[in-house]
Amino acid sequence: MTAQNDIPQRTVYIVSDGTGITAEALARSILSQFDVTYSRIYIPFVDTLKKAQSARLQIQAERERSGVTPIVFSTLVIQELVDEIRLADALHLDVIQPFVEPLSQELGIAPHQKIGLSHQNMENEEYKLRMEAINFTLAHDDGISEQNLEEADVILIGVSRSGKTPTSLYLAMQYGLKVANYPLIPEDFERNDLPQALKAQKHKLFGLTIQPERLSSVRNERRPNSHYASLANCRQEVMQAERMMLMNGINYLSSTSKSIEEISTAIVSKMRSAYAQQVSIPPKSTTALNLK
Amino acid sequence: MTAQNDIPQRTVYIVSDGTGITAEALARSILSQFDVTYSRIYIPFVDTLKKAQSARLQIQAERERSGVTPIVFSTLVIQELVDEIRLADALHLDVIQPFVEPLSQELGIAPHQKIGLSHQNMENEEYKLRMEAINFTLAHDDGISEQNLEEADVILIGVSRSGKTPTSLYLAMQYGLKVANYPLIPEDFERNDLPQALKAQKHKLFGLTIQPERLSSVRNERRPNSHYASLANCRQEVMQAERMMLMNGINYLSSTSKSIEEISTAIVSKMRSAYAQQVSIPPKSTTALNLK
Repeated sequence: MTAQNDIPQRTVYIVSDGTGITAEALARSILSQFDVTYSRIYIPFVDTLKKAQSARLQIQAERERSGVTPIVFSTLVIQELVDEIRLADALHLDVIQPFVEPLSQELGIAPHQKIGLSHQNMENEEYKLRMEAINFTLAHDDGISEQNLEEADVILIGVSRSGKTPTSLYLAMQYGLKVANYPLIPEDFERNDLPQALKAQKHKLFGLTIQPERLSSVRNERRPNSHYASLANCRQEVMQAERMMLMNGINYLSSTSKSIEEISTAIVSKMRSAYAQQVSIPPKSTTALNLK
Repeated sequence: MTAQNDIPQRTVYIVSDGTGITAEALARSILSQFDVTYSRIYIPFVDTLKKAQSARLQIQAERERSGVTPIVFSTLVIQELVDEIRLADALHLDVIQPFVEPLSQELGIAPHQKIGLSHQNMENEEYKLRMEAINFTLAHDDGISEQNLEEADVILIGVSRSGKTPTSLYLAMQYGLKVANYPLIPEDFERNDLPQALKAQKHKLFGLTIQPERLSSVRNERRPNSHYASLANCRQEVMQAERMMLMNGINYLSSTSKSIEEISTAIVSKMRSAYAQQVSIPPKSTTALNLK
């Protein structure tokens, strides 16, 4: 998309003492509320005064070069670094500091003002679980393996190309869930029964469905003009898959107009309420959930 | 971790008109600054007044049940929904609204106050690229395939179990990069040369290394008491891998004490500066980068 002249253009800086991934996601949500085009510059790992100074100079230089006020989203927990960045002539939107003070008052304790406390690394127990979840999910993609299926937290089912694989990986990465996924194929519809391997795990099954028109276009990218991709066949498969899920009382949702983030969140909400369980975690833990 | 009596315990609500993933990540960073244990309750997809009312009632009920003030992190773009949630007796930390007003003033335009504008779905062009990146990355994990290697944005190399696979997947999911990864194996060290397939793509190579002690313990989980997992062998492999990367002028970093988020961000920063390129995107786009 090229910006029309009447749409403001800005340079947006993402300044963080960590990866900046959270700041970037929040910046995107906030900026999406405005008709503005922007080029985005990341300055991650700003954890020393020296780095903050060089970030400040970079922002200042852009301000002078373009003559337009840059927009700075920052997640910095050390006040000294925030103060340094704020010396640059820019619109400063710090997304941490404004919330630390009221929280400190409510809790009646002082903040650590230490960097990297939300940081997880390979030595972290819950981080290990998340890595195991990713390995499990890779090993159980597309029905590759039926081994240790009982270890799965969630088993996704649906017709080929309904979005099972990216959703499985996202569930593993974001929520630390061990996810297996199984395609529902014509043989299953002929037998009019779920794959044998899944029957013992019925309570873990979650279905993905998709609009036949959408499925047909996705499949056509893979196998143009095939029976597999034909609208008629996609209609048939989707209809049979949805009927099978209904027959077996399996929750399902349509991936057609949803992102993997939305699909994953919807699945976790459904599964969690099914397990009637809250997420209870210590600080600094991953988002790993126990759905068991 | 069970909370000691002297550590405050709270119930934290994540209320969002979307998935709540951003709100959750920010809440974790902010809460990590305090010695507080908390149980976390997600209320995603709060996009109607009715849903906001039921969320408000749920929070209010918890307040009355526990006698302790709940903490509410919210990402809601419609003021009416924010106002409804704020009726609950809680500490309200809205992480969108405080930034919309100053941004509106700076840009001189009004916010849309529409939900889901940062939303990407299957019809979204950049979202498709992200899905393609995930498929490419899966197809090129652990040197499985050398097909279309020229399409890769990044090719990770390193000894077995140095963190290549989860990092590759995260780069694909978060940054929309097509990532291949290749193990460096004893045969390569004997030949004292990079895998043949990688030579044409040298400019895309990025190395992961790891502390031998750490590698040995990771490998021991897979193959206890094997030569493969022995500290002596791990020391040897890591030393040879690092030497090969140095010899070939390949950037590398240690995954030992880093999360996949940190490793990925560091790689993207390095690659981006190597390509001397900024990220330029329209609003509502994914974080897909073009490193080419």
